[in-house]
Amino acid sequence: MASSRRPGSPLGLHRVLDPPGVLPQAAWRLDTTPALWPDEARVRVRRLNLDAASFRQLREAHQEDPAAMRAAVLDIVSARGKMQNPVTGSGGMLTGVVEEAGPESPLGLQAGDSIATLVSLSLTPLAITDGLAGWDGKSEQVPCDGYAILFGRSIATRLPEDLPAGLALAVLDVCGAPALTHRIVATAPGSAPVVAIIGAAGKSGSLSAAAARRAGAGRVIGVVPHQGEAALLADAGLADAIVIADARDPVGLSGAVAGAGGPADVTVVCVDVPGCEGGAILSTAQGGTVIFFSMATSFTAAALGAEGVAADVTMLVGNGYVPGHARLALDLVRAEPGVRAVFERRVAEHAEQAG
Amino acid sequence: MASSRRPGSPLGLHRVLDPPGVLPQAAWRLDTTPALWPDEARVRVRRLNLDAASFRQLREAHQEDPAAMRAAVLDIVSARGKMQNPVTGSGGMLTGVVEEAGPESPLGLQAGDSIATLVSLSLTPLAITDGLAGWDGKSEQVPCDGYAILFGRSIATRLPEDLPAGLALAVLDVCGAPALTHRIVATAPGSAPVVAIIGAAGKSGSLSAAAARRAGAGRVIGVVPHQGEAALLADAGLADAIVIADARDPVGLSGAVAGAGGPADVTVVCVDVPGCEGGAILSTAQGGTVIFFSMATSFTAAALGAEGVAADVTMLVGNGYVPGHARLALDLVRAEPGVRAVFERRVAEHAEQAG
Repeated sequence: MASSRRPGSPLGLHRVLDPPGVLPQAAWRLDTTPALWPDEARVRVRRLNLDAASFRQLREAHQEDPAAMRAAVLDIVSARGKMQNPVTGSGGMLTGVVEEAGPESPLGLQAGDSIATLVSLSLTPLAITDGLAGWDGKSEQVPCDGYAILFGRSIATRLPEDLPAGLALAVLDVCGAPALTHRIVATAPGSAPVVAIIGAAGKSGSLSAAAARRAGAGRVIGVVPHQGEAALLADAGLADAIVIADARDPVGLSGAVAGAGGPADVTVVCVDVPGCEGGAILSTAQGGTVIFFSMATSFTAAALGAEGVAADVTMLVGNGYVPGHARLALDLVRAEPGVRAVFERRVAEHAEQAG
Repeated sequence: MASSRRPGSPLGLHRVLDPPGVLPQAAWRLDTTPALWPDEARVRVRRLNLDAASFRQLREAHQEDPAAMRAAVLDIVSARGKMQNPVTGSGGMLTGVVEEAGPESPLGLQAGDSIATLVSLSLTPLAITDGLAGWDGKSEQVPCDGYAILFGRSIATRLPEDLPAGLALAVLDVCGAPALTHRIVATAPGSAPVVAIIGAAGKSGSLSAAAARRAGAGRVIGVVPHQGEAALLADAGLADAIVIADARDPVGLSGAVAGAGGPADVTVVCVDVPGCEGGAILSTAQGGTVIFFSMATSFTAAALGAEGVAADVTMLVGNGYVPGHARLALDLVRAEPGVRAVFERRVAEHAEQAG
């Protein structure tokens, strides 16, 4: 079968229809043929977990109307062969059950395995067959029937058996953030660096705060937008200081961080709203590092913002892949009751909104 | 005078009209009142140097029609009080003569000094008074009469007397790139790292190649788009290997870099076209670093592109400010005949196009 087609590529280049030659992530449209190339695997999809920036954009563009949101996602997937929001460029991840693994698939998966993908939906061939009838548009976790294709280099992980599926999915969705935070804090110059987490009561934020502490942070400053989040973070015990500030207000944010023991040697941006670049830069000490995990980050705003205030800070694009990221994140949620409490609260909020 | 107005800020917050509270770079509109706050300086503008991505966008959007391009720039500056291209988000820089420095200006400038700004036009209050009558739309260097405002923290530098003004301006425009490249190559793990410069025959590329070598690169691989650029780079002697590849073709680019001694430990992206993220990531060794200097870089394409191919690479937003950047770049163009030759060729091309 495969012999009559284009040669397969572990990067999935053979599935790119338009424009030819680009990587699947950059493609406008992918080939969703269910038949596998030898190193691919096909997954029966159970649930999509839309990226936070994408879900927010869809919800706002369609005034929270479930039917319009369903239609928008179906249109995107039908047109593009993948769930990549054309406005945000971002995707999300999925869970499902392996239907078939090609004879040369290097992923170590077998039919029947329950898995989560650790590569973005923005590069994963996807077909939806149930019209998303089970999704009410209130949560980024989207019940879905359909199938998806994993390439040779598409990282996936078996869902852990000791954690509820919704919790595990929420953890795996953001597992790159704590892994990269750990690495940067552990290798920061000097000892016991000050770390500011913007959005510390969220999913990636709480994991990153725990990872920073484990990596040797001398002080973790948690920034949250309002009193409710501050209380949640205080209960979790993940920050040495908690400040309430609007991350889009550079002067307010940097003043609040300074008042809590900053500026930070490492600032981690975990909020999914646009316009946080300037505040993060001003909250960071000269010679420090900003890690941007938000998909709402603007490259030019970051580059020109730092230049514009003569800030000698290292700015990192938050790479979602760091070796061992899934294990580190799952270990943190198992070992840190505060992190687990934040996640259980977030997952419950979704269930409640969806209920 | 100033006492009746908002208090001044070294960041220029007092000049932000819309939306209130953001930094000037993020603002839609700035206040261009010529009267100075105490720590500001006013410059009589001689020339704007549009950012390469912005110039390319304007030229393509207006089919190279000079009148339409002039009108577009005038409309932007009139509406926004600054030259920030709404499509690319980027600006450029300017040269001029200091008209007045406020009594508390910390920049060390005096009336009559010929200077270049080292902060972006995207945050610099600007008024144009000559209708850009002297610009034919063929070059990003735009003759211009008008005035601009420098804040307390707006870095500017006196134009060197030993270099032609057009040459100095072209060097200062991109001086952040060689400075950051030097720092990253000098501190890369291991000795004598392999460095790939994408767009090595351009302005920021040639300076970055020279900086990489000076910082201890073991091998500099210069990537250029066609034979003419390859010949220019060969004459300049700035690369140990030269390869011709389309930076938007990830497989072609990474294959070419691998064939020339790669993958690279450090990859420096100096081309101003969109879609180079995937190729740069695939050209870089696991554990290596990509520095994105192009304002056409997409944050999400970089973040999701690396994750999508399981690439453990550090990705840096090219901060235009590194202490000592102007001096390092000017020193390189003085000391390296190859860099100077590239710049003289580029400046001459502009003059020719404009002639």
